[in-house]
Amino acid sequence: MYGAGDVRVENVPDARLVEPTDVLLRVTRACICGSDLWPYTQMAHTDAGRRMGHEFIGIVEDAGADVRTVKRGDLVVAPFAWSDGTCVFCREGLQTSCLHGGFWGGELDGGQGEAVRVPQADGTLVVLPVGEDDALMPSLLTLSDVMGTGHHAALAARVRPDKIVAVVGDGAVGLCGVIAARRLGAEQVIVLGRHPDRIALAREFGATDVVSERGDEAIERVRELTEGLGAHSVLECVGHDLAMTTALGIVRAGGAVGRVGVPQHDQIPTTRATFFSNVTISGGPAPARAYIEELLPDVLEGRIEPGRVFDRVVDLDGVPDGYREMNNRESIKVMVTP
Amino acid sequence: MYGAGDVRVENVPDARLVEPTDVLLRVTRACICGSDLWPYTQMAHTDAGRRMGHEFIGIVEDAGADVRTVKRGDLVVAPFAWSDGTCVFCREGLQTSCLHGGFWGGELDGGQGEAVRVPQADGTLVVLPVGEDDALMPSLLTLSDVMGTGHHAALAARVRPDKIVAVVGDGAVGLCGVIAARRLGAEQVIVLGRHPDRIALAREFGATDVVSERGDEAIERVRELTEGLGAHSVLECVGHDLAMTTALGIVRAGGAVGRVGVPQHDQIPTTRATFFSNVTISGGPAPARAYIEELLPDVLEGRIEPGRVFDRVVDLDGVPDGYREMNNRESIKVMVTP
Repeated sequence: MYGAGDVRVENVPDARLVEPTDVLLRVTRACICGSDLWPYTQMAHTDAGRRMGHEFIGIVEDAGADVRTVKRGDLVVAPFAWSDGTCVFCREGLQTSCLHGGFWGGELDGGQGEAVRVPQADGTLVVLPVGEDDALMPSLLTLSDVMGTGHHAALAARVRPDKIVAVVGDGAVGLCGVIAARRLGAEQVIVLGRHPDRIALAREFGATDVVSERGDEAIERVRELTEGLGAHSVLECVGHDLAMTTALGIVRAGGAVGRVGVPQHDQIPTTRATFFSNVTISGGPAPARAYIEELLPDVLEGRIEPGRVFDRVVDLDGVPDGYREMNNRESIKVMVTP
Repeated sequence: MYGAGDVRVENVPDARLVEPTDVLLRVTRACICGSDLWPYTQMAHTDAGRRMGHEFIGIVEDAGADVRTVKRGDLVVAPFAWSDGTCVFCREGLQTSCLHGGFWGGELDGGQGEAVRVPQADGTLVVLPVGEDDALMPSLLTLSDVMGTGHHAALAARVRPDKIVAVVGDGAVGLCGVIAARRLGAEQVIVLGRHPDRIALAREFGATDVVSERGDEAIERVRELTEGLGAHSVLECVGHDLAMTTALGIVRAGGAVGRVGVPQHDQIPTTRATFFSNVTISGGPAPARAYIEELLPDVLEGRIEPGRVFDRVVDLDGVPDGYREMNNRESIKVMVTP
């Protein structure tokens, strides 16, 4: 990406092993993330460009001498952050804060390409027990980010079976948040969104109520649905100021907001109201790596189908179109088959 | 209080029963709260004045017909919020959000006086199994607010035995936060403060490290004490902007800030840094009522001595002096014996 709206498919030097802990991966599935749309709409032009894509599945083509847990020919999924698996944060399950890890892009390859050098392969990658064209591939691909992120929002918002849940945002993360909330036992799940195709999918995923209003009207509507008290658990799956303000407006006293949308604002937009009502604000980038093992059985056995958020498939040449369609809300989420 | 710096001791109409759920209490001990210093330094002049005092112990002089759990002659402690004990929030242990409760002052009597009408007495009051001049009275009085507030900060900051704790603020709440953190098993407790008498008491309460720097230097010093990573649990016991900025600067990735200082700022002063490090922000006014039963045995059996935060005793006529001394940091916390 060279700047807002400027996505180009170009030849770059071949990915190759550098460290003995690296793996060389041939990408078989990737996708475009809602968070990729922030630079797509806001990024200043740069002559160097930025490698894009942080969600992918691939085949191990080569492995460094120190790699132990994956081998040539394995099909693996990569979470959106790479991590060594051994540092104090990785051991606590917070791989996004790994002391020797980081995020894709920058100096590293992006997942929206043919191949990726994966650092810290033992800590980062998880082998998938299926073939590379298995029908479950879309759902397995969501374990790289979007399903783990919805799950993280639900955990941060302290979803429990007897709690009322509200999900702010009907994008792919919000939809996965609905799946996660239901999976954790919530019976009432209110989704805030206004796109008919997304709302329909939210209902299929188990949302019980839909609020299509925005701002103060949305807050009032959620209060009507919750005996005036608000939701115990609010999943903030957007990241802009209005979404956070709405989330803080619909959470009940003593409740929690789990935020996973990358914040586009400088400050959390209230402090006294949340203080006096003892609201907890939690969340951040999901340690997707930690959740892959937890969520994988549910995907393999068909209990959850997060792959349904993909409603468009493109090849590499189609990636610029994929960005445009997601940004225009013509597509919920775009899968890339290099 | 008629405005900043203007505290007067005046005769007001006698407190009396109004509702059948009321109790009339003769105050035997009260105190001045750190939060009383916010209006003491900032309140605009008002001709009507404001009743002050929300922490008190007293003898039941009279009880309404519907009162069941306390009777004439009982010695009782009142938390800083009154509550019915039966609503959905009270049942969850969040009595500060009681649907039929509220805070002292306003239309109600203040505790810095001779007598108080206590609404919702069954939900609000807890009988103390000692005489009114028992030597434990200072520590029992802290159960009305300051010890419960320190405990709440520790719970909100998720203090556990194997966690490093930092306490921002060496006032009475911060000192009780040190007690609470140790009581919950923390072995390393860093207190941020600079008043020698308070620091000395913090050490007696179990603080293991003292950071007397402020701002960025304090953040750097805490990082030095924590292998560069910060504290797992940070108790924000002040409420102003710098204290919150410091708290957010010293909390480790995946950690939690428990805030109990009444916020004097409009917004939480950062959002992206706390997001990317998955920091949780929690806390608010402590449901002191919920904690009285939990903390009372420890006070009665002498395992904790939070009453040591009182270093000055005044009668009612001495209350204006008490405010001045606390505000000048000449006293940590002032007890009032009406």
